[in-house]
Amino acid sequence: MTAAPGAPDGILAGYRQSIDNIDSALVHIMAERFRVTLAVGRHKAEQGLAASAPDREATQIARLRSLARDAGLDPDFTESFLRFIIDEVIRHHAKIGAEYRAAPVDAR
Amino acid sequence: MTAAPGAPDGILAGYRQSIDNIDSALVHIMAERFRVTLAVGRHKAEQGLAASAPDREATQIARLRSLARDAGLDPDFTESFLRFIIDEVIRHHAKIGAEYRAAPVDAR
Repeated sequence: MTAAPGAPDGILAGYRQSIDNIDSALVHIMAERFRVTLAVGRHKAEQGLAASAPDREATQIARLRSLARDAGLDPDFTESFLRFIIDEVIRHHAKIGAEYRAAPVDAR
Repeated sequence: MTAAPGAPDGILAGYRQSIDNIDSALVHIMAERFRVTLAVGRHKAEQGLAASAPDREATQIARLRSLARDAGLDPDFTESFLRFIIDEVIRHHAKIGAEYRAAPVDAR
């Protein structure tokens, strides 16, 4: 059965309120994740560590694929999602590293 | 000051534990988001509604960019992030819609 065209769709509106609440949570959790990775980037620059860590990434991906399977989320999508975030983080870290390398030695 | 090569890095390990906890939260919130959008997809297919809703997406993006700014998260990254999720949702909805259209009329 289809609703009359233009009629208010209370079911859809309810789903959208849930999605908006979930998205607000995602934005705030993501903001916190970038606060932590910013600290990691500064720490790596101070210690002269590489911006990317392939072994660590492989471990993260395997762990999240497993969590995704248990939660009923597509593991391939989850891996792409993590890769999307990590790529942004690596861009940040490379930028922080370049800023440190450009700074005078006694300021490190 | 840099740590001795190969020495355990307790600071980095602590940051990574936080990132792993945050990523677990992200996977579970994302799993819940897809549970809701799966219900939306079924509802849209039943009602014969289009899989994508450009006006709704524009409203979502504007709202999340504003939330991101308040939380100190890059609004451009946030928009790309939401777009990444919405693209996956639209793929799901288009698939559900095609399955409904292929089903016998009396099963709708």
